[in-house]
Amino acid sequence: MKLVSFSTSQGSSFGMVRDDVIFDLGKRLDGRFADLKALIAANAFREAAQSIEGAQADHALADVTLLPVIPNPEQIFCVGLNYAEHVKETHREVTEQPVIFMRLPASQVGHAQSMLRPPESQQFDYEGEIAVIIGRGGRRIAEADAWQHIAGYACYNDGSVRDWQRHTTQWGPGKNFYRTGAFGPWMVTSDEIAPNALMTLVTRLNGQEVQRATTEMLIHGIAKQIAYLSTFTPLFAGDVIVTGTPGGVGAKRNPPLFMKPGDVVEVEVDRIGVLSNPITDEA
Amino acid sequence: MKLVSFSTSQGSSFGMVRDDVIFDLGKRLDGRFADLKALIAANAFREAAQSIEGAQADHALADVTLLPVIPNPEQIFCVGLNYAEHVKETHREVTEQPVIFMRLPASQVGHAQSMLRPPESQQFDYEGEIAVIIGRGGRRIAEADAWQHIAGYACYNDGSVRDWQRHTTQWGPGKNFYRTGAFGPWMVTSDEIAPNALMTLVTRLNGQEVQRATTEMLIHGIAKQIAYLSTFTPLFAGDVIVTGTPGGVGAKRNPPLFMKPGDVVEVEVDRIGVLSNPITDEA
Repeated sequence: MKLVSFSTSQGSSFGMVRDDVIFDLGKRLDGRFADLKALIAANAFREAAQSIEGAQADHALADVTLLPVIPNPEQIFCVGLNYAEHVKETHREVTEQPVIFMRLPASQVGHAQSMLRPPESQQFDYEGEIAVIIGRGGRRIAEADAWQHIAGYACYNDGSVRDWQRHTTQWGPGKNFYRTGAFGPWMVTSDEIAPNALMTLVTRLNGQEVQRATTEMLIHGIAKQIAYLSTFTPLFAGDVIVTGTPGGVGAKRNPPLFMKPGDVVEVEVDRIGVLSNPITDEA
Repeated sequence: MKLVSFSTSQGSSFGMVRDDVIFDLGKRLDGRFADLKALIAANAFREAAQSIEGAQADHALADVTLLPVIPNPEQIFCVGLNYAEHVKETHREVTEQPVIFMRLPASQVGHAQSMLRPPESQQFDYEGEIAVIIGRGGRRIAEADAWQHIAGYACYNDGSVRDWQRHTTQWGPGKNFYRTGAFGPWMVTSDEIAPNALMTLVTRLNGQEVQRATTEMLIHGIAKQIAYLSTFTPLFAGDVIVTGTPGGVGAKRNPPLFMKPGDVVEVEVDRIGVLSNPITDEA
């Protein structure tokens, strides 16, 4: 099942995608769920599927604005330095525990929306990643149980403003410029992706492949990430874990390859789809 | 005006404190504001004051549970290494831009609630700080205008689990254990504290003074913090900026001085009041 958050001139809602149409679940479930996060918290996927049986679609996918899959997560965790090639290109070392930083909801856009290059920097870089969306919350979740807490998966572009990321030892500012990250196009529910399934992640800039990896190459796998994060904080339904980027980021190329207005950046995950975003200068 | 968030057996609300009583603003304003964040966003302080004119108090302060001043901020920013003595004791260097990391709402408790030492660590440390609560939101706020965006001030204890803070270069995990930080007891509105007013911050552990500083000693002052943060992200009403801790943290003492069950930690700011929390082991 592919689930999206979207807006139209009538406001925001969430729905199910089939081919090129959307069934509006906000409407079909009688407004009982405020948003996709609430649907996930209620584990109401079966009800969602039943509500569209035999129904006509509500929107053409092309007619809506896709929002970040979860526009309002309580917590967004990102895992840094989680593929060997990326650790190497940044001249860092593998750590026993995952490197964790955070993004804020305001830093995100949905599929096809512009990722914004701020006027403060020309060092706007891509980072293709696989995002995990938490379903059932929990604390101190064992690795063996972690897969039961995943609602689904999406593509993520952890867009990074490199000079601001390096102002100090802490990366937050460079990772949280307004509308610099992308999250979409939709969430594929975890019933369609087996625990520890092999997924292939590819990033393309203007059609040219710049990153490629598989989930087998993750240093700290998804189950370990969930176990680690939930040791210090409760995980909540709709929380997002951005699982790490492979080697090939623009800042570490020679010459560096930064994103500029007019560029199009894509993050493709084979089991999910393609997240595509144009780059524009922030007005 | 002193504003608090609180709960009773009837649920959560927010109110105004006078001496040892609370006027329930959630009730008196006819439920028009969901919470203190909403009141701040509406800039409804005058209305709040009018609603209690000639009124009887609703609760004794001692009869309610004080929550974190803003229980549900959209964004909580903390400034690291922002007093020279603390920079020195950690063997770090002063940076041109402020060191920014983030806390999550689940990591906070209110005044008099237990700060929890997790079973994963014995290195639970205090960090007394002054918290700024944003009133009018904005982006790219000039330093000269920053004071107009502050709704008020509170005390903050940026409780830190030191070994987890040092798992990697990024401090988030050690700064975000569940209910390890404290935020209270109330917010003093900014009409009572002039821009750039001198404030004195003192931390006591079991009655013994362990930190002392004034806002004159901040490396990156409050106006600069607001300007810097709002360069990369919009600030929203109710956002919290935790402005930095002075020298004297427990981890850098010889021998180290960590908090343990039965301890009481206090953060006092002269214009605000005293935030006091017992330490207990997480059950």
